[in-house]
Amino acid sequence: MKLADLPTPCLVLDRGILQRNLDAMARAVARHGVALRPHMKTAKSIDVARLALANPHGRAEGITVSTLAEAEYFVGHGITDILYAVGITPQKLDQVAKLNAAGAAVMVITDDADAAGAIAAHASPPRALIEIDCGEHRGGVAPDAAVLLEIAARLGPGFAGVMTHAGQSYGGRSAGEMATVAAAERSGAVRAAERLAANGRHCPIVSMGGSPTALHAESLDGITEVRAGVYMFGDLFQAEIGTHGMDDIAVTVLTSVIGRRPAERRVLVDAGGLALSKDRSTEAAPHDWRYGLVLDALGRRSFGQSMVQRVYQEHGVAEFSPDVPLPDLPVGARLRIAPNHTCMTAAAHDRYFVVDGDDTVVAVWPRVNGW
Amino acid sequence: MKLADLPTPCLVLDRGILQRNLDAMARAVARHGVALRPHMKTAKSIDVARLALANPHGRAEGITVSTLAEAEYFVGHGITDILYAVGITPQKLDQVAKLNAAGAAVMVITDDADAAGAIAAHASPPRALIEIDCGEHRGGVAPDAAVLLEIAARLGPGFAGVMTHAGQSYGGRSAGEMATVAAAERSGAVRAAERLAANGRHCPIVSMGGSPTALHAESLDGITEVRAGVYMFGDLFQAEIGTHGMDDIAVTVLTSVIGRRPAERRVLVDAGGLALSKDRSTEAAPHDWRYGLVLDALGRRSFGQSMVQRVYQEHGVAEFSPDVPLPDLPVGARLRIAPNHTCMTAAAHDRYFVVDGDDTVVAVWPRVNGW
Repeated sequence: MKLADLPTPCLVLDRGILQRNLDAMARAVARHGVALRPHMKTAKSIDVARLALANPHGRAEGITVSTLAEAEYFVGHGITDILYAVGITPQKLDQVAKLNAAGAAVMVITDDADAAGAIAAHASPPRALIEIDCGEHRGGVAPDAAVLLEIAARLGPGFAGVMTHAGQSYGGRSAGEMATVAAAERSGAVRAAERLAANGRHCPIVSMGGSPTALHAESLDGITEVRAGVYMFGDLFQAEIGTHGMDDIAVTVLTSVIGRRPAERRVLVDAGGLALSKDRSTEAAPHDWRYGLVLDALGRRSFGQSMVQRVYQEHGVAEFSPDVPLPDLPVGARLRIAPNHTCMTAAAHDRYFVVDGDDTVVAVWPRVNGW
Repeated sequence: MKLADLPTPCLVLDRGILQRNLDAMARAVARHGVALRPHMKTAKSIDVARLALANPHGRAEGITVSTLAEAEYFVGHGITDILYAVGITPQKLDQVAKLNAAGAAVMVITDDADAAGAIAAHASPPRALIEIDCGEHRGGVAPDAAVLLEIAARLGPGFAGVMTHAGQSYGGRSAGEMATVAAAERSGAVRAAERLAANGRHCPIVSMGGSPTALHAESLDGITEVRAGVYMFGDLFQAEIGTHGMDDIAVTVLTSVIGRRPAERRVLVDAGGLALSKDRSTEAAPHDWRYGLVLDALGRRSFGQSMVQRVYQEHGVAEFSPDVPLPDLPVGARLRIAPNHTCMTAAAHDRYFVVDGDDTVVAVWPRVNGW
């Protein structure tokens, strides 16, 4: 099967780029001697998970997931060591318990004393990490908060350590800034772990991540594992913040020209707001890539900085920048679009069409979406 | 089953509100004596399609779809008269032909002379409408363009008429402005049809739509059918532009509190950028509803203008506005979020949990997503 045979829009995953990204992260984390716990929220694919766990550079132990649908899917494919890294609710504990009764070891997180009590009170309580706020102020308790010790106490024997995520790294714009955020992430988690240890609660797991901080951290002392996900595929936003280069984006959307407006240097394509997502992560980045960078059918940057300027539900307006020759693309011609934010873009699609540097489809890998 | 039993995040569809919205549109279109061709791009559900087609106020003939996945799904459920209202590519004609060979009557659209030639040259050419640009300048040919007659000529016997969509109606902010856009939409389609007729090509179908223009048109003279979709569910953006009222939003996202920050008047919920979409349609509207309006578990506006202020992949930050008492919501408490743009929000979900004004789930209706 060739790319030309595929229905559009669809997701194309370049296996060579993926492997290069996996290697780069594996090496970066292995420098510190800590384990990598790949976050599958981006890829949502057992095939990608297996590659991410087959880490020749160091330890990759277990995975991270963002939904219970992912947990169930990966357990069904034989992965047992799973961290569900979104605050648990009491209602979700039955589903976790069911997976664990079937042989999995799904861990949960909380930053709430009452939720910790509900976890401990469950008939089959999972192991739980306490979420620490290292500066993003999204979720988590401050490392020095009194409630930290209360949550650990209420978790009882299921308490397994702490985890944090420095989402503020997405505001960083240089390796130096990322290293500073990584230091805050590390020290937040380690400070919380030290306070707990001083109160008799040793933390078997001290977890942090983040692709940008995992790559740029100068020290991971006191950290036992690093979580990261978007590094596998990359995207325009991650390229903007220095996680990888512009040629390291492994996932693109294959699309067809469905209309032509040469006077406006535009074509209409069949990848719109659903196929690309309406994510505008690069809006505040040094370069705003609108709804994605227009590549040729082989994924090459043949059209300079031409972008998808607007999207409607099933329509994208691809505009060729004035510094490139206007290509003569008939209706039906194929393009590929590099995404702003690959986690959001990929979520609209149920499979990857896998290539390896050319236009031959070497595999089809399914994704698990939804909740 | 009760709402409290559902996993979160999930989609809740209020059947009573849906029916009210269907009635309002059916009546508005019936005033003009033209047929309604419901656009299923928003609902993507056979159960909703059946209600939209059971129009006691006038004629509802066939449906509109935005993907071939929808076409295949609806044909599989017995609906045969279908307009696929996104510019066709030559590669997609085989799939259309396959549906038509199985008894369907799927029509396609084009605004391109070469694509018209490819349609006519297919072994089983579908009937085709020419897309007219009535001022949005997304797709379509101008009513007075020379190429209009060329496209009709190249389509040959499969030529079935014209269609247009005044997407610029989304810039309207009053019934008067919508009526003006509707007049431009009507006159663009009718002008094209008249030119074609003057050249010996009668248009059996002269199609326009649009929820806002379908509702606000003062005349549909010369139009044979109206397409509309988002009116079925409504959303915050459509409420802003006057398509319906704030209490006419039929689809909401049920979510659970997963963290609490009372000092910041915030809760973290498990509906994030995937469950709500990152659509920001109301950004330029009179009232910017950010990522959605926070409702109570029964869908009531109990929290004033409290909104989801930020989203991450699986996290939403719901902030209670200063003019309402801060509710005491434990982790696990349920809220509902009215969406910015229901077409985008619904697309992340694979089913509707249907209620009828209270918290009892009376049905579960599947959706068809993807391509």
